[in-house]
Amino acid sequence: MKISQIEHIGIAVESIEKVLPYFENVLGLKCYKTEVVEDQKVKTAFLKVGEVKLELLEPTSPESTIAAYLEKRGQGMHHMAFRIEDGVANAIAEADAAGIRLIDKAPRKGADSMNIAFLHPKSTVGILTELCEPQA
Amino acid sequence: MKISQIEHIGIAVESIEKVLPYFENVLGLKCYKTEVVEDQKVKTAFLKVGEVKLELLEPTSPESTIAAYLEKRGQGMHHMAFRIEDGVANAIAEADAAGIRLIDKAPRKGADSMNIAFLHPKSTVGILTELCEPQA
Repeated sequence: MKISQIEHIGIAVESIEKVLPYFENVLGLKCYKTEVVEDQKVKTAFLKVGEVKLELLEPTSPESTIAAYLEKRGQGMHHMAFRIEDGVANAIAEADAAGIRLIDKAPRKGADSMNIAFLHPKSTVGILTELCEPQA
Repeated sequence: MKISQIEHIGIAVESIEKVLPYFENVLGLKCYKTEVVEDQKVKTAFLKVGEVKLELLEPTSPESTIAAYLEKRGQGMHHMAFRIEDGVANAIAEADAAGIRLIDKAPRKGADSMNIAFLHPKSTVGILTELCEPQA
């Protein structure tokens, strides 16, 4: 697979409203978009730092995987997303062939107009890893 | 403080030798440097992805903070480092004035010829946060 950059770092938070002043006023980053992703039961907020986005993830339901994550590990870095230049479907196939455990066997629609797929952290040095590309 | 980019993401690993094939052969990233940081009791390996470095951190002693981290949380993303354009000393002073808990009250020398200081994750949304600048 051809990775050009880290597309974003996902950060699990209890409340976007409560943590945004830290990111905006202390770090000096600006939130440029919020978005609710219904099927993942999360509210997201995006900030940009250099070429990378920080994606704050707040659960909108106790059934959200982010709610489960917060209960187990607390707030913090949740996943790392790489921008794939030669196709997420191709990257999935390569990872599968290399014996990497897949969460998604095919690309699906994610936040911020991206096609995405996740690799399982058991196969990726404990880092929940997202592969993504802009939707055509 | 003026942050220009994510300088690196620190990743705690049991063994650089064991995980490097994943980063190099599956993700297609290349390790360009390894370095032992004696006073932090870690061996580091650096890979570049876009403008950001991945810093793999392997403990060289059971007393390393990375060894303690691995025991508690397992392998995964350990810290996020921001590149500061208007001085790490200045950024520390601003964070202190904003009530952020500091790990380092003054910049110190880190890996990769950087002056660094850490902010405590209790004050930074659970993300162990490093501020860094190239040594003059």
